[in-house]
Amino acid sequence: MPEVHICEVGPRDGLQNAKHLMPTEAKKAWISALAAAGISEIEVGSFVPAKLIPAMADTHEVVAHSIKIPNLKVVALAPNLKGFQRALQAGAHKVGFPVSASRAHSESNVRMTPEQMVEEVRKCAALGGAEIEGAVATAFGCTLQGEVPEDDVVRLAVALAEVCDAVALADTVGYANPAQVKRIFSRVKKEIGDKLEAAHFHNTRGLGIANALAAYEVGIRVFDSSMGGLGGCPFAPGASGNVITEDLVFMFESMGVKTGIDLEKLFLARKTLIQGLPDEPIYGHTPEAGLPKGFRATA
Amino acid sequence: MPEVHICEVGPRDGLQNAKHLMPTEAKKAWISALAAAGISEIEVGSFVPAKLIPAMADTHEVVAHSIKIPNLKVVALAPNLKGFQRALQAGAHKVGFPVSASRAHSESNVRMTPEQMVEEVRKCAALGGAEIEGAVATAFGCTLQGEVPEDDVVRLAVALAEVCDAVALADTVGYANPAQVKRIFSRVKKEIGDKLEAAHFHNTRGLGIANALAAYEVGIRVFDSSMGGLGGCPFAPGASGNVITEDLVFMFESMGVKTGIDLEKLFLARKTLIQGLPDEPIYGHTPEAGLPKGFRATA
Repeated sequence: MPEVHICEVGPRDGLQNAKHLMPTEAKKAWISALAAAGISEIEVGSFVPAKLIPAMADTHEVVAHSIKIPNLKVVALAPNLKGFQRALQAGAHKVGFPVSASRAHSESNVRMTPEQMVEEVRKCAALGGAEIEGAVATAFGCTLQGEVPEDDVVRLAVALAEVCDAVALADTVGYANPAQVKRIFSRVKKEIGDKLEAAHFHNTRGLGIANALAAYEVGIRVFDSSMGGLGGCPFAPGASGNVITEDLVFMFESMGVKTGIDLEKLFLARKTLIQGLPDEPIYGHTPEAGLPKGFRATA
Repeated sequence: MPEVHICEVGPRDGLQNAKHLMPTEAKKAWISALAAAGISEIEVGSFVPAKLIPAMADTHEVVAHSIKIPNLKVVALAPNLKGFQRALQAGAHKVGFPVSASRAHSESNVRMTPEQMVEEVRKCAALGGAEIEGAVATAFGCTLQGEVPEDDVVRLAVALAEVCDAVALADTVGYANPAQVKRIFSRVKKEIGDKLEAAHFHNTRGLGIANALAAYEVGIRVFDSSMGGLGGCPFAPGASGNVITEDLVFMFESMGVKTGIDLEKLFLARKTLIQGLPDEPIYGHTPEAGLPKGFRATA
C-alpha cells in the first residue's frame, strides 16, 4: 500500500496553462501511460465553458476514456453546479471545486464571493453522485490581494469540510513557504481533522518540493503534482507550474516512502507527454539526470 | 544579525563547471555585486593546476580583489598543501578542502585515499595562516561507487574535525534526499557538535532546496549555494548545479529567517553575472517570477 498518494494534475492544471493545445488522442495516450506507471488518481480536465478555456473543451471525451482504465480514480474540476452536472454525465469519480480564500481572486475569477461558492458546492453535494473535494485556492497568498489572512483560509476550509468529502489547500500562485505551509496545514487540521487531505503547490519561486516536504512533515499524505512541471510560464525559463511529479515521486521513493509509482514507467509516460506536446517546455530534474547509481525504489 | 549564513560558491563551484569562461574583470564585478547585496562569504576560486581547470587560472587575482571588499570573508578551495600555500600567498581568509567519503571518488579525483587527504589537511593546519574547512564530499552517494556507507561519512567527519576549524557535508553529485540529510547531519552533529557547520547541496534531481530545508530543521545554519544555479549540465535543461542562491534566500526570508541579504540587490548581482557570462544558462525561479505581492523581507 502506498504511504503517500500522488494525484497527477497535469492534464488539467498543466494543459490549462500550457501555451500549446494537446490533441485529445494524445491526452488519452498520456493518461493511460500515467496510469500504467502506477498513478492511481488523475485530474483529467475541467468542465468550464470551452470558449473560456479551449484546452478543456474535450474534457467529456477524456473523462469517458479515463474511467475505462482499471484502478484509476478520475477527477474533473467544476466551477459551479452546471460544471458538476456535466462531470456527473461524463462519469467522473470525483469532482474538485476550487474556492478562493482571496475575495479579490474569487470575485475576479468566478464573480462570486467565497461564501457564494461554498453555497454552490453545497448544492452539488446535495445532488450527490460523485466524491467532492473542496480546494481552498490562494490559501498562501494572492497576486491580486497580496496577503490572504490565515483566519480566512481556516474559516473557508471549515465551511468546505461541512459540505465536501475532502478538503485541499492550494498555493495557486506559488507564494507559499515551508514555515507557512506547516503553520496553516496544522491550523486547518486541528479544525477539520482527516477531512484535510491534499496539498497543491506550484513551483513558481522554486519552493514547490520544499513545501511538499513541509506538508508531509505535518502529516499530509496526498499531493497534487504535474508531470514535467507542465503549465509553467513560457517566458520564465525554469519557472515551472505545479510541483514536478517526477521529482516529487523521486523524493518520496528515495526517502523510503512508498508512492506505488514505478519511476522508470513514469519516465516512459513523460515521453508520451513530450510526443503529444512537442513544442511545450517540459521540466524535471530527475528524468534528465537519471536515477542515482545503486538507487533502490521502495518495494 | 543573520540567523542563517549563505556562502556563495558560484565563482568557484559554478564557474568551474560552466561551459563558458568568465573573464577575470567580470568575476571581480560579480563578486563585488554579491558582496553589495549582503553576501558575507564567497568561495571565489580554487588553487588547482590551471591546465586541469582553466576557469580557475585567475584565482590569485580574484582573491586579491576580493579581500579588499570590506566585511567579506574570502574563501578559496585547495586540493593539497601546494594549493593551500598558494591560497595563503593570495591572502584568502579561509581555505576549503574537499575530501571524498567515497574511496572510488577520492582515488579517481585526487589519487589519494580519504585518509591520505586528511593527513594533507593536517599538514596545512599545522602551517596555519587561514581558517580551514574540511568538506566531506560525496557524503550522500557517489556516481562511481553508488552508495557511500554512512559510517564512512561519520568517520571522515570526525577525522576532519580534529584538524579543521569547521566541517561541511557535501552532496557533490546530487544524490541526497531529505530523510538522509536529517539522519546523516544529526549523526555527525552528535559526534562533532558545533564543528559541523555547513551544508552543500546540488539540485541535480530537483531536491536541493528541500534538502537545505531538511538540514535547517536539524539545526544547520550555514549553506553553500550558487547564483543562478550556475554550473548546471547544459544538455539537461533545468538540471542546475548548486542550490540556487536566489531561491534559497527567498525561502529563508519568506519563512522569516534573517539572511542579512537584500533580495533586490541580489537580483542586481544576477544581472552582473548574466552580463559577464551571457551564453551560460542561468536558472532561478524567484528572480524570474518576481517577489510576491506584499512580500516583506526580514528586517
